[in-house]
Amino acid sequence: MKVAIYDTTLRDGTQGEGVSFSVADKLAVALKLDALGVDYIEGGWPGSNPRDAEFFERARTLELNHARLVAFGSTCHPRSRAEDDANLKALLEAETPVVTIFGKTWDLHVTKALGTTLENNLELIMASVAHLKSKGREVIYDAEHFFDGFTANPDYALETLLAAERAGADWIVLCDTNGGTLTSRLADVFASVKRAVARPLGIHAHNDSELAVANSIAAVERGATQVQGTINGYGERCGNANLCSVIPVLEVKLGHEAIGRERLSLLTHTSRFVAELANIPHGNHLPFVGHSAFAHKGGIHVSAVMKDPSTYEHVNPELTGNSRRVLVSDLSGRSNILYKAAEMGVDFTARAGKLETVVARIKELEHQGFQFEAAEGSLRLLMERALGNYQSPFVLGVYRVATERDSMGVLKSEATVSANVRGELIEATAEGCGPVHALDFALRRVLRKAFECVGGIHLTDYKVRVLDSNHATGARVRVLIDTSDDNQSWRTVGVSENILEASLQALEDAVNYKLLSEGGVCRNAPMNEGVVEEAHVI
Amino acid sequence: MKVAIYDTTLRDGTQGEGVSFSVADKLAVALKLDALGVDYIEGGWPGSNPRDAEFFERARTLELNHARLVAFGSTCHPRSRAEDDANLKALLEAETPVVTIFGKTWDLHVTKALGTTLENNLELIMASVAHLKSKGREVIYDAEHFFDGFTANPDYALETLLAAERAGADWIVLCDTNGGTLTSRLADVFASVKRAVARPLGIHAHNDSELAVANSIAAVERGATQVQGTINGYGERCGNANLCSVIPVLEVKLGHEAIGRERLSLLTHTSRFVAELANIPHGNHLPFVGHSAFAHKGGIHVSAVMKDPSTYEHVNPELTGNSRRVLVSDLSGRSNILYKAAEMGVDFTARAGKLETVVARIKELEHQGFQFEAAEGSLRLLMERALGNYQSPFVLGVYRVATERDSMGVLKSEATVSANVRGELIEATAEGCGPVHALDFALRRVLRKAFECVGGIHLTDYKVRVLDSNHATGARVRVLIDTSDDNQSWRTVGVSENILEASLQALEDAVNYKLLSEGGVCRNAPMNEGVVEEAHVI
Repeated sequence: MKVAIYDTTLRDGTQGEGVSFSVADKLAVALKLDALGVDYIEGGWPGSNPRDAEFFERARTLELNHARLVAFGSTCHPRSRAEDDANLKALLEAETPVVTIFGKTWDLHVTKALGTTLENNLELIMASVAHLKSKGREVIYDAEHFFDGFTANPDYALETLLAAERAGADWIVLCDTNGGTLTSRLADVFASVKRAVARPLGIHAHNDSELAVANSIAAVERGATQVQGTINGYGERCGNANLCSVIPVLEVKLGHEAIGRERLSLLTHTSRFVAELANIPHGNHLPFVGHSAFAHKGGIHVSAVMKDPSTYEHVNPELTGNSRRVLVSDLSGRSNILYKAAEMGVDFTARAGKLETVVARIKELEHQGFQFEAAEGSLRLLMERALGNYQSPFVLGVYRVATERDSMGVLKSEATVSANVRGELIEATAEGCGPVHALDFALRRVLRKAFECVGGIHLTDYKVRVLDSNHATGARVRVLIDTSDDNQSWRTVGVSENILEASLQALEDAVNYKLLSEGGVCRNAPMNEGVVEEAHVI
Repeated sequence: MKVAIYDTTLRDGTQGEGVSFSVADKLAVALKLDALGVDYIEGGWPGSNPRDAEFFERARTLELNHARLVAFGSTCHPRSRAEDDANLKALLEAETPVVTIFGKTWDLHVTKALGTTLENNLELIMASVAHLKSKGREVIYDAEHFFDGFTANPDYALETLLAAERAGADWIVLCDTNGGTLTSRLADVFASVKRAVARPLGIHAHNDSELAVANSIAAVERGATQVQGTINGYGERCGNANLCSVIPVLEVKLGHEAIGRERLSLLTHTSRFVAELANIPHGNHLPFVGHSAFAHKGGIHVSAVMKDPSTYEHVNPELTGNSRRVLVSDLSGRSNILYKAAEMGVDFTARAGKLETVVARIKELEHQGFQFEAAEGSLRLLMERALGNYQSPFVLGVYRVATERDSMGVLKSEATVSANVRGELIEATAEGCGPVHALDFALRRVLRKAFECVGGIHLTDYKVRVLDSNHATGARVRVLIDTSDDNQSWRTVGVSENILEASLQALEDAVNYKLLSEGGVCRNAPMNEGVVEEAHVI
């Protein structure tokens, strides 16, 4: 069965707190949704705000291969004639092939929010749909608050649908606007509407009870042939039905045709692309598309997945363009480490005893507060050192970091770091915005005197977490650092009661990782050059 | 109907990527879960790692009012006798009143992952359950992969449950371990198991298809009287069933007894508390407990909600301890502040102009990265200062913080802080485990010279978050500090590019809050006494 996918990321999705797209963003998202193979793209509510009006104007030249663009609005004003209604005019002026209008189902809303009679509301629905149909549009009728309305007054709720049907609406969509309807109830109501209405039906679910995906699927099982939702479930309050979960369930688990099996592998990319443009961190734990969706941590799980992925994976991650990951933590055993090692090209086969050493060392360090799950750079160093493949060519010595606010109120941070490189002592001093900044800068300044390639790396992220935080400032802290050069980036970790010591550990690992990956090719710089002046790169 | 709530945040929850609790965190979470009214708290897998072993040892002295502590593990090893099995021994040595063991249901897993015969697996289940029962434990049997196993071989899957039942298991819990089962299928299978098994049944659902909450609810509708899940849905891959959604659905929408209606209002607090300890940003869009769950943005929604909240809210936010928020308008800013002020007993009625000043100042500071939602101590000071009710009796002057590692490898941090107290300059120096510790200690040492009551306060929590973290160590940091005396505790905030400056701001507010709440009763200490020696209290 073909189930039409109706995306409202650009309209309902932008009602979500923290989600806001520029017009250029909206155009880029529309193209991406078209490539993904959705059937309808709801672009906005023309007339409600200038951004949406501009979008529809610029969207006229958008070349969509498959999707049909939709303008969204309400039925006409209670005291307007459909032909003269400003809202319907704006919808027609958007010049989209499809128009969706929502109308009132719930008697409470008709009298309280709309301020009109139940009879007049039916006339508004009919007149609005008929007017849009007379202008050649495909018309989708969204029955707002359908399930709450049906509970309050089932006969009237059904009447509103039949009014839209009589006026020629192409689709009737039942909305769980407040997101409070339970799945079993929604399925029952959907089935009884299906018996009463001949037009194709759709579902529009909100996630306020964490049931939006389940409710969308239940509606399809009761005959819905259109599902409305958003990428990543963005939307007002708790969001809309997440199309990134609905689509693979329809395609892979129910055997329906939604976007087509071959385009399913674009899903993960699309999900992350939309998150980037919305400037919202991509949800790690999102089903099907999240970075953690196929990540295995427990030791038992890992060894089973290595024998047969179907033991702990409900679908193949590649179907949706995602991939399997194995995490390392103190819950894990030998098999996680082996998997990680293989991934990094570290070979333990000839030295099984060393593997035990590494596993024991990781458990011990994690007990102290280290975390290697994210810090793969430090993990790699630990393995290579255990195997005798790497030894640091420098030893850090005395260091000193001072921050002061002087009598003029000026804040200053300065760090001095020394290192012993093959018997020679070198030292450098640097200032920074804060003590960590100064320390980072002094360390890289001292080491680039000896190793030229250190000049090519820079910090890209810095995270700090207080462990056992109820010990307050005497507690340990864990620092995670991201470092990049032109080709790659890596993450390292440090733990101490002293935040500067923890930072230095992570910084030291970051430099060692760079030296390790250069494999000795990192040319030694002349030892006696003066302190190289460089801009504050971070 | 009573539905038992089984929390596995401390075991399955910690399998989630990015979730990791210290032993002290786990103990604090257990107490919080007990206060919330959950029936079972699964603490970990003793023997699998040192952290869980330590947890169960320290948990023996934990005073739980309602919840029963649970140790988790597997059925005994295929080649062990139950009495001699290391895993079962570790479970008994945890000395918990309840033990949960999982066993294999799916024939594929029995032969592939466990490497034994179908018949032997049944014996392992029976022997393991019987052994634990013989030691007086309440035994919960988790049927791993139940739904997948039932699909592959329904007769055998059922046999495994009956084996556990015959051996005396108190509960039989059906697990959707891979999270791939659709709600309609799960409901059907659950109903047929219910007809075959007499013991009370439970459900353990994972969220890989975004259906974990729906599946848990569907199971209860088919007779489950125990739901296993985690706070905020933390857990391996895409997480477990989110108890923060399951519980209110059971209580409010289905009329069952889960934790009791009166404790439901602790849900939002518990959810945020657990997120804080896990140091994971609390999900804004989480149903029932998220900051955005009852936030209204669209203009139509806002005006309707102001007429009647039920128009766009499926439940009253206060039921779960959450609150309504109206986004966008300055009006909402004012009413929030007024609401907070009333809560704190600060009176703006006679001085409306001052309220505008406070609202504008808060917006400005929040734009800089301050956050007053958690830092009510700093918020209260800001209001009282705006009203002219409080002026700090001291001004901090020059300070200096130095950390060094000397040539013997010894790490030392020392801070010197000066303050002007009514024209007199005082100064003190202190050492600490790290620079923040030293700074805190020096500040309180200098101020207790002037204000005796400062000696009675201590730091109880310290958190730091890097804002705009992609600027790395040159980015701003926000520091949140909890301070307590014998009667109360309060939280203050500081923001700067320099972590020590941000810490000092928060520490300074913490002392001012103490002086404010003493209302001038804090007796001045003699000004010229020497530096008082005191133990490192933090």
